[in-house]
Formats: sequence, C-alpha cells, structure tokens
Amino acid sequence: MKLIIGNKNYSSWSLRGWLALKAFDVPFEEIKLSLFSDEFYTELAKHSPVGKVPVLVDGDLSVWDSLSICEYLNENYLSGKGWPVDKSKRAVARSVVADMHSGLFGIRTEMPMNCRARRHVELSDQAKKEVATLDALWTKLRAENAQNGDYLFGKFSLADAFFAPVMFRFKTYGIALSAAASEYQTTMLMHPAMQEWLDDAIAETDAYAAGEIGEAV
Amino acid sequence: MKLIIGNKNYSSWSLRGWLALKAFDVPFEEIKLSLFSDEFYTELAKHSPVGKVPVLVDGDLSVWDSLSICEYLNENYLSGKGWPVDKSKRAVARSVVADMHSGLFGIRTEMPMNCRARRHVELSDQAKKEVATLDALWTKLRAENAQNGDYLFGKFSLADAFFAPVMFRFKTYGIALSAAASEYQTTMLMHPAMQEWLDDAIAETDAYAAGEIGEAV
Repeated sequence: MKLIIGNKNYSSWSLRGWLALKAFDVPFEEIKLSLFSDEFYTELAKHSPVGKVPVLVDGDLSVWDSLSICEYLNENYLSGKGWPVDKSKRAVARSVVADMHSGLFGIRTEMPMNCRARRHVELSDQAKKEVATLDALWTKLRAENAQNGDYLFGKFSLADAFFAPVMFRFKTYGIALSAAASEYQTTMLMHPAMQEWLDDAIAETDAYAAGEIGEAV
Repeated sequence: MKLIIGNKNYSSWSLRGWLALKAFDVPFEEIKLSLFSDEFYTELAKHSPVGKVPVLVDGDLSVWDSLSICEYLNENYLSGKGWPVDKSKRAVARSVVADMHSGLFGIRTEMPMNCRARRHVELSDQAKKEVATLDALWTKLRAENAQNGDYLFGKFSLADAFFAPVMFRFKTYGIALSAAASEYQTTMLMHPAMQEWLDDAIAETDAYAAGEIGEAV
C-alpha cells in the first residue's frame, strides 16, 4: 500500500492521511511529491480525478481525500477500531471530523500549516470564534472520555488524526488555549508519529534551503 | 427520529441529509427552521456545537453534518446498504462524496441553490472546470455501473444524495452537460423524493411571498 502526500512542512491534508496509517501501525510506502511541481500534477492525475493529496493506492484501487482514506482504513485494516466503539460516540467523532473537513475556514486560511515556523498573526473575529469552539469541544470530549485515555475519545482515534494539523498551526502562531485544550495539544504534539512528521518536515525544508532538493518551496 | 433542516428552497446541506432518509424510506419527523432567524440559532444551539443544519436527533443523540448523518444512517438504519457493497466501489463513492463535502467551491459559491428559480450566470474558469470534472466523473461512474441501475453506482446510494443539490443548481442556472451527465441529472430530478422536496420548496416560497409565514427569505 502506498500513500501519496505533499511536502510535510506544509501539506495539512497529507498529515491527516499519513497519521491515520502511522498511528495505527498500518504498513505503507510513502510517496512524497513537491506541492505544485510538474511532477505533482502529472503523478496525481494518474490516481485522482481531483488532483489533490493525499491519495492512498492499494493495489488497483486509488482512494482520494483524507476522510475517505480514514473510512477505508477503518473498514479494511483497522477492523472498525479507527473510530470509537460506542455508536453514539462514533457518531459524534464523525460529526466533529466532518466539521473540520468542510469548514473552519478562518483557522485554515489565516494560519497556513508551517510545522517548523513560529509566527505572529492577528486573527479575525471568525477565526477567534472557531478557536474558541474547538477549545470548548476538545475540553468537553476529553473530560467525557478521560477514563479511557488522553485523546478526544480516550484512546487515539481517527478524530485525533483530523485535528493533527491544527496542533501544529496553533503552535506556529502561538494561539492561547484553555489549560485543558492545551493539555490535549501537548498530548498530540508528543505523539511519536507527530514527532516523526515534524522531524521529517524540518529535514525536508533544511534540504530545500541547502539546495539539495531542486524545487523551491 | 427527527431531522432539523433549513428552508427547502435554499438549504443545500439540508437536502443531502433529508434525501438520505427519504430515499431509503427511513421514518423521521422533519423540523424546519427558517435560515438565519432567531429561532434557527437558538434551536440549533441545543443540538449542535457548530450551529449548522442538518442535524439528526435520535433519542439523546445529536448527529450534525450531512456526511456524518449519512454514515450514522448507513450503520444503524441501512445495514450498510447506503454505500455500494463492493469495497472498492464503496471507497470511490466515499471519495467523490468527500470532494463534494470539502470542495467544489466555484459551483457552490457561484450557483447558490434556489430550487424553483431560473437564472443566468457567467461562471468563472474555476467553476467551469469543476462542472467539467463532475460531468466526466458522473459519466464514468454511471457507465461502469450501468448494469445495476441508472444512478452513480447502479442503485441509488448515499453518493447520489450528496450530488442532489447540484442537480437543482445546474437546472436553475441552465448549465449545459454532456448527454450522459444530463441523463443522470434527469434521473435524479425525477426521483420521487426530489420531486417532493421541490414541491415543498415551491410551496414554502409561495407561502413566504403571500405573507403566510412571517420570516422573509
């Protein structure tokens, strides 16, 4: 199985698909394309009608979009354990993920993912409201599921994978969170797979800076 | 079970959730709120942390977002029959739905859903490209699954429910499609549940125009 992704420092959707595989120890080969390079478009066109990363290639099958990849992994490689076991919690998990998938544009546009950078940003009222909504949501979910672990639904789930890029964004732009939400952010950032992604992102941008990789980013 | 929706003439996300229930004959009570009215925000706040329609209320559980509702129905009321049975087709179905859920912004912003209206629009290059992508995708999927029916994956599936608002949009704005895609549009528009939605949308806007309902839309 292969996962086609973009640059690790910048490609937030790639991180979601990658973490879904990595955190659940599903073996895969990583194929990294430089975002917006010629190769990016020609390679992607072979696997996706919409030309976006990530794409999961499993034999003859191409699965595009991070959420669709998560559902595919859950059904075929995780025996349903990607989501919470309880049907109500599973529905809530999918609801919070769906909102991240289709919305939260203030956060997404005003705080582009740049894992290694530290920057200042003046957020719009909309983005501030979204940060507050996420903070409250994370706090509530973690409190409800604290007996089972430190993630949103206790054990690490696909819902956590979906918020992974936001952890880097909030770190990069120095976004203040409540104590409880901040604890969740720390838990996520300390996850071994998140540390591996960050190390790779730093190595990748170092290599670009040193001219070892041809494409400027 | 209750489904909270917005105005039928305008609320494209509501149509997706509503059609998922209606087309699969799942019994439910429809709760309609006037978009952007005070009631809309106060009622929704009781069921959704993000304040958007549709919301499915099943006993104590609230499921928000149309895609999360589809997955919930599929697991709990449709015995998995909401998606194609074949695992590869199911992955493709979820991929095309995910793209509709998170993207196609040219179509969504330049052609707001207004089921009963007939209007002209000059599309941007981006929107034209999206129309062409959808046209090719629908044509390909229908050709691949033609032996099982006239919908994208043969029989009506949750993937069709996701494209339902686009059928009304393309009709409203007179968007030209290929013969094959146009056939699919006709199949969708002729679905009894789509006709019922359209009838309701017309009755609803007539009632507003006649002053029988207080909220202007």
